[in-house]
Amino acid sequence: MITTRPTIPATRFVERLTAARRLAETAGVDAILVGVGADLRHLAGYPAMPLERLTMLVIPAGGAWSLVVPRLEATPARLCPPAASGDLPVVTWEEGDDAHALVAGLVRDAAGAIAGRGIQVAVSDDLPARHLLPLQQQLMGARFSVASAVLRELRMVKDPDEIALLTLAAHAADRVVAQIARGRLVGRTEADVADEVRERLIAEGHDEALFAIVGSGPNSASPHHEASDRVICAGEPIVLDIGGTLAGYGSDITRTLWVTGGDAAKGPDERFRHLFGVLHGAQAAARAAVRPGIACEAVDAAARRPIAAEGYGDAFFHRTGHGIGLEGHEEPYIIGGNTEALREGMAFSVEPGIYLVGEYGARIEDIVVCGPDGPIELNEAPRELYVVDG
Amino acid sequence: MITTRPTIPATRFVERLTAARRLAETAGVDAILVGVGADLRHLAGYPAMPLERLTMLVIPAGGAWSLVVPRLEATPARLCPPAASGDLPVVTWEEGDDAHALVAGLVRDAAGAIAGRGIQVAVSDDLPARHLLPLQQQLMGARFSVASAVLRELRMVKDPDEIALLTLAAHAADRVVAQIARGRLVGRTEADVADEVRERLIAEGHDEALFAIVGSGPNSASPHHEASDRVICAGEPIVLDIGGTLAGYGSDITRTLWVTGGDAAKGPDERFRHLFGVLHGAQAAARAAVRPGIACEAVDAAARRPIAAEGYGDAFFHRTGHGIGLEGHEEPYIIGGNTEALREGMAFSVEPGIYLVGEYGARIEDIVVCGPDGPIELNEAPRELYVVDG
Repeated sequence: MITTRPTIPATRFVERLTAARRLAETAGVDAILVGVGADLRHLAGYPAMPLERLTMLVIPAGGAWSLVVPRLEATPARLCPPAASGDLPVVTWEEGDDAHALVAGLVRDAAGAIAGRGIQVAVSDDLPARHLLPLQQQLMGARFSVASAVLRELRMVKDPDEIALLTLAAHAADRVVAQIARGRLVGRTEADVADEVRERLIAEGHDEALFAIVGSGPNSASPHHEASDRVICAGEPIVLDIGGTLAGYGSDITRTLWVTGGDAAKGPDERFRHLFGVLHGAQAAARAAVRPGIACEAVDAAARRPIAAEGYGDAFFHRTGHGIGLEGHEEPYIIGGNTEALREGMAFSVEPGIYLVGEYGARIEDIVVCGPDGPIELNEAPRELYVVDG
Repeated sequence: MITTRPTIPATRFVERLTAARRLAETAGVDAILVGVGADLRHLAGYPAMPLERLTMLVIPAGGAWSLVVPRLEATPARLCPPAASGDLPVVTWEEGDDAHALVAGLVRDAAGAIAGRGIQVAVSDDLPARHLLPLQQQLMGARFSVASAVLRELRMVKDPDEIALLTLAAHAADRVVAQIARGRLVGRTEADVADEVRERLIAEGHDEALFAIVGSGPNSASPHHEASDRVICAGEPIVLDIGGTLAGYGSDITRTLWVTGGDAAKGPDERFRHLFGVLHGAQAAARAAVRPGIACEAVDAAARRPIAAEGYGDAFFHRTGHGIGLEGHEEPYIIGGNTEALREGMAFSVEPGIYLVGEYGARIEDIVVCGPDGPIELNEAPRELYVVDG
């Protein structure tokens, strides 16, 4: 059992930066521009705050990378592993400077261009318009694309340290599910339970509690319902979909509960039992389908087929899963039409649901890593319907 | 004293949408496209999760607004006040649909154009590249700008409900400062204290704990230091800069502590006392300068002048403040060069600092609203140096 957080060494970030530069060259991209977010954390180990001042990792295809930061963030920037080891120069700008012009200059220098014309630039997918539009202005005529087209290879396949962190996060979330399932629920609002979930996510080892969906009664049929002032009643289901981050890596688990209030007459009705049974089988089938070489869409189909066969096809109206790592949702997406073949080390959710809108619904979600011969299941919490007193 | 959260009614959102449309017309913008974030919350009261699927409020200058959402988020979207009251139609798209093409079609229809040429589009400042680049592709030839150029008027001046929410958040943060100042600090890591801050921010009424800067000893001289594994020692300062959100509105307070460990010989040295005294006077001067009609840069200068006069000019190397509301940092920025005149209802931080890099530093930060005749100070925590046993 993994109990301590692995530390990702500076050399790993240098390897990733080197790989990113090579991928840029292969793709014919002159520079990759990485703003604050998951790509920056992945390539430089720098968990910068998403503020409005420009922080940007510049990776020219042919030249030397650098990290451009506002002066008042210079100290934390210089502490990220590749900067601390002297492998990533930090360039600072002062309040009032035009930071976008500074970055554009670095790109032009690397590309040997005077204006922007002919330059190909890839920007991190989450770069906000407040930075992208001024960069486009400064590099007039350059062609911009999303960096995921270049970096996806690097981000999708996780190394053993990353899998260890995802596992720690998954186990922490498992413990929270168990704690909530044995606690009081009936008579409390969803929002109150969600607050407890957030506290417990932190207490169990997450650095951040990111979401706590508590969908009770009819709200269980709304997949992205969060948590409302609705009071939980005996005799209804609760979809509990929770997650946070641990050293940047996400957890994301869903279990479905049914609260009886201690009254045996208020257990799940026949229809719900049937619906849940179908869902349970579908989720197991999708997990079992995971192996190197299988297409993402085939895993999606493995979940969808048994659900459709029982007449619930229209009631499962989202994809089966999403990749997870430094972002809660990232590639690969487990969705119809995605022919990407799974490879060893890819990590993603498997989370079919059946939703009878206005009535009730259920979802089961696990984080799974594609192992050498089949699935490696990170979550250990039981997947059955949790029939509890609440 | 305000103790309960005001609810912003559906009619207010319709007024804001109407005002946004009028501002778009005035600016010659054909459509405002608002992704997930503060603008969406401000205009539609919809606190959507920042996920990768496109959620977009479309406000055509001449036509009817609509909210485009993925089907699986339709239920929460329809609960936002203007949608629930029937004033904001919700348009859903299905997994696999091209949501960017859908939005581009709405823009073209409104502008009466076939391609994108000649169309002017304003996008929310935080719209990520993953949505902006495909929209640019779909509306080839259109001119894109940031929506803040159009919406800033609406966002900068707060209404009484917004000020009430900022006040509740400020008072909650004040209580956390007081609690931390009377607790144990010496011998604990900064990160451990930061965890306690986050828990207390929630316990005191925030929905989210956003940041907890705990900069001890030399880290107090790094303005955007967060919290490290450094163990706090007796005989050094701590800059505590903390904040969260309450109903979407932010708190942000900084106080400087000096921990003695109960040893009178380990109090602040003369130089620190002098530095802090200069800072204290500068922050008070900047707050006192706040009144309708004064330029933002003049408030910045009011803080900077006394600091420079004592020879610390280079040690105060960031702006004096930033607006606050549904974003932690927003307009107006209290910075040299910003000639914007303050108006009644603008809310912002006043936070000068003096940093002797490698040694120590201090900062004092309050949230201030521009009142009819002068400053309205939202924070009530004492601004003196907190000399505590720790």
